[in-house]
Amino acid sequence: MGSGCSSLSFPHPFPPQILTTTTTNTTKTLNFTPPFSLPSNRREPVMTMSHSSSLANGAVGSDGPKEDQKRTVTEELLGKMTADALVWSALHGLVVGDRRVPRSGTVPGVGLVHAPFALLPMTFPRSHWSQARELAPIFNELVDRVSLDGKFLQDSLSRTKKVDAFTGRLLDIHSKMLEIKKTEDIRLGLFRSDYMLDNETNLLFQIELNTIASSFPGLSCLVSELHRNLLDHYGKDLGLDSREVPGNTAVSQFAEALAKAWGEYGNSSAVVLVVVQPEERNMYDQYSLSTIFPVQYFSTNIRRTLAEVDAEGQMLSNGTLLVGDQAVAVIYFRAGYTPNDYPSESEWAARFMIEKSSAIKCPSISYHLAGTKKIQQELAKPDILERFLDSEEDVAKVRKCFAGLWSLDNYEGVKAAMEKPELFVLKPQREGGGNNIYGDDVRETLARLQEKGSEELAAYILMQRIFPTASRSYLMREGICHQENAISELGVYGAYLRNRDKVIMNQECGYLMRTKVSSSDEGGVAAGFAVLDSIYLT
Amino acid sequence: MGSGCSSLSFPHPFPPQILTTTTTNTTKTLNFTPPFSLPSNRREPVMTMSHSSSLANGAVGSDGPKEDQKRTVTEELLGKMTADALVWSALHGLVVGDRRVPRSGTVPGVGLVHAPFALLPMTFPRSHWSQARELAPIFNELVDRVSLDGKFLQDSLSRTKKVDAFTGRLLDIHSKMLEIKKTEDIRLGLFRSDYMLDNETNLLFQIELNTIASSFPGLSCLVSELHRNLLDHYGKDLGLDSREVPGNTAVSQFAEALAKAWGEYGNSSAVVLVVVQPEERNMYDQYSLSTIFPVQYFSTNIRRTLAEVDAEGQMLSNGTLLVGDQAVAVIYFRAGYTPNDYPSESEWAARFMIEKSSAIKCPSISYHLAGTKKIQQELAKPDILERFLDSEEDVAKVRKCFAGLWSLDNYEGVKAAMEKPELFVLKPQREGGGNNIYGDDVRETLARLQEKGSEELAAYILMQRIFPTASRSYLMREGICHQENAISELGVYGAYLRNRDKVIMNQECGYLMRTKVSSSDEGGVAAGFAVLDSIYLT
Repeated sequence: MGSGCSSLSFPHPFPPQILTTTTTNTTKTLNFTPPFSLPSNRREPVMTMSHSSSLANGAVGSDGPKEDQKRTVTEELLGKMTADALVWSALHGLVVGDRRVPRSGTVPGVGLVHAPFALLPMTFPRSHWSQARELAPIFNELVDRVSLDGKFLQDSLSRTKKVDAFTGRLLDIHSKMLEIKKTEDIRLGLFRSDYMLDNETNLLFQIELNTIASSFPGLSCLVSELHRNLLDHYGKDLGLDSREVPGNTAVSQFAEALAKAWGEYGNSSAVVLVVVQPEERNMYDQYSLSTIFPVQYFSTNIRRTLAEVDAEGQMLSNGTLLVGDQAVAVIYFRAGYTPNDYPSESEWAARFMIEKSSAIKCPSISYHLAGTKKIQQELAKPDILERFLDSEEDVAKVRKCFAGLWSLDNYEGVKAAMEKPELFVLKPQREGGGNNIYGDDVRETLARLQEKGSEELAAYILMQRIFPTASRSYLMREGICHQENAISELGVYGAYLRNRDKVIMNQECGYLMRTKVSSSDEGGVAAGFAVLDSIYLT
Repeated sequence: MGSGCSSLSFPHPFPPQILTTTTTNTTKTLNFTPPFSLPSNRREPVMTMSHSSSLANGAVGSDGPKEDQKRTVTEELLGKMTADALVWSALHGLVVGDRRVPRSGTVPGVGLVHAPFALLPMTFPRSHWSQARELAPIFNELVDRVSLDGKFLQDSLSRTKKVDAFTGRLLDIHSKMLEIKKTEDIRLGLFRSDYMLDNETNLLFQIELNTIASSFPGLSCLVSELHRNLLDHYGKDLGLDSREVPGNTAVSQFAEALAKAWGEYGNSSAVVLVVVQPEERNMYDQYSLSTIFPVQYFSTNIRRTLAEVDAEGQMLSNGTLLVGDQAVAVIYFRAGYTPNDYPSESEWAARFMIEKSSAIKCPSISYHLAGTKKIQQELAKPDILERFLDSEEDVAKVRKCFAGLWSLDNYEGVKAAMEKPELFVLKPQREGGGNNIYGDDVRETLARLQEKGSEELAAYILMQRIFPTASRSYLMREGICHQENAISELGVYGAYLRNRDKVIMNQECGYLMRTKVSSSDEGGVAAGFAVLDSIYLT
């Protein structure tokens, strides 16, 4: 299901779920065969709604219940909404490949199942929403500036390289580009910055910045549209207003950025190459992007694995990348972000050839490296942001969203974590591999690593643990509605395109909300159960 | 997958498929894992295109090949179109439940697979297309008139009743309505008249008239849209113009008819009840209709099986039908057309209660009976049409599309069939059960039936066999492209709504094209393999 889900097992900040379930109304036997079922030991027959302001604000229309009434969601209403949402998903392409069906990750149109989604949007404070949106163009610019400082990237990652072969290989390609003084005149970034809202401090903290293969621009838009549709129908019953779910244009803005980059390349017969994994159950998220490529810009776009690029590709002496007999204008990576995508030298050869070519890479090696956790940690050090951002105001905004980040050679950080491990997360430096470490395991791992020495220490970074508030949510998976305590993570997409000195695009591009069963509450469903969600502004 | 597919194993009339396959171009290794595969013993590496006028007419744009060139479809192009079409299906709800996945017929959103479809539209003569469209409002009116002649229905079906318990039960309900002088002031029909084009005579013949549960108004619109999209992208390569694929508005016109009927009923809190089967893998066709119900007309629509209507329903003394506590304005049957839908007395009790009520039935028992094969045969007799249609012109139009139809007490018909069985089809009278009989089996069955006597004879009717031309088609099923000789059947939808003397709607409503592997050529794929298609006018 794409990259960047690793940080989701944090507690979380949002007001308690605004809905209430009651069984005082008789449950109807609906023909669609009640698509929801709650494990009986976890069922909560009657929950009294909290009188949160978000509910009062959400009430609309003369038919809506009065503000001082308890709003309830009967099982009948829940059943109707659940069925409507599932039908909507099937009719609008809110789908993924079902891993239990053969060929679902390789052949489009077979083995489809609705993508996991939350039945209703998660409340989110308007002020923090604005803050996250404002940060997008600043992070876009920041990545671009960092990418131009080859020495900073090499120096910052030199120790990481020794313990993380994957980052090492990326750095090797980066070194070779520095050696041959390769420049990227046209630079395209499609990013997603992920945040959580800390309940203790009421501050928005960045979890990570994805600079490669930022997933779900397509499905996230569909979930927002689904929620707006549901609230158009059931908003009065719920006291919610569909207009408080922000519209989401991630998919069209990403497509526009790719189209504009293609235009800058200036070869009308060249194609956009989407680099994909051999098996991809999240292919409909990717396809929803490519199907709205403006036809006036593109004759076609093609999909290849890195191994196929190696087999079919070549670079001409003028720098043109060919795949078969087709010139490539833009390479859009939806693979290549994890060591698993490079099972042999063939894939590395393809990545190297792509990097050497004159095609526009989304992302280039240096954009890719600028999104590593180690660089995130380096940027959090004093006086570093100032090297890359001109505006003091921008520096302040970025710094405000940085949680505490320490390398394991930082004495104070490690000492604090040994004393109060519950306030920290230990994160593997390596991209796309390994799980975060929490609680007492932080102390034990730190002790073990210190025995092994400095190289092992470089494989991890230490991060301040963020405590979002868990709230009651309806999580839909495989046609079943799970009512769970859940936490959310907000991702804000950004698109950046420049050609030499000219910034062509530097935009915030919509959002992704992901909601996950909180780690303290994972008994009911499989661990790591995350769904797509949207925002309800309060 | 709904009703009315039984007549599809005829040969068929349309010009040879306009496409050609060649392997002279190297096949590309496409990443999406070539979604088509042809059984190797059936592969035809090079087929020369026939220089049919349909191709020349289809060529558009300055980039298109010249008319005198052979147009070819390379495997590469076929692969691209196939992948695009499969992706489009998944993103736009051109889906059905996959019978191999549990719950796919009961829970929306799970176990989805693209609906079977033809990759490209089937050519069809513009004149016959116009003829079929013109017939729609005439058949609409004809069904309404026939439905009002209770004696005609009872008399015509009296012998059928003895050998067909299902029609007998429908007739019993009809009798009771006649006894209590039940009238239907507001009458709603959503029909589909199915035709084949006979190659021998170049005449369009009606195969059957569906007056209940006419299926695929939703999916047929999607296939037309898919084909127009594919031709927008690949039309130049194929020499085809997307504008020659007629737009299809079946789903919106059916929804409009339901909405208008609901309006005529005049109770703004009443609902539309969709009567469905307990398991329904074609549910997305049904849902696509209900999701576009204009919200200003409907607060909601509900889905129930006949058994659930029996359990939850009641009729008030004023005739109002309640399901639970909801009054029902319109009952839209998407079940109830086959004996299988009445496994117990409960379902018959529901059908009876519905018929007695004041709710608008789509269809009423008499509309339902007017669509039986026996009535089709009666109407084909001399001077019968004139009893129901006022205009001589309309009578002539309808008669022109009637193939030869005989009951088995017709001496000349049976004699001819015994002598030349290859020119006839023996069709079971019973709706929704039994297969058509062809060839030597016609002679054998007739001989056997004549020994058994007149009652057994009444269980069948004899129909002139229609010989459409088989043509090469690309049939998509379960992600695989089958290249087969195929024949097609055209269905034209009609909607009819009247309130006493006022005809509110009498419209032709779009079309359904179905294409099926011709019976002489079924070795390659499962027998009875039919796909959804659209029309390319020539």
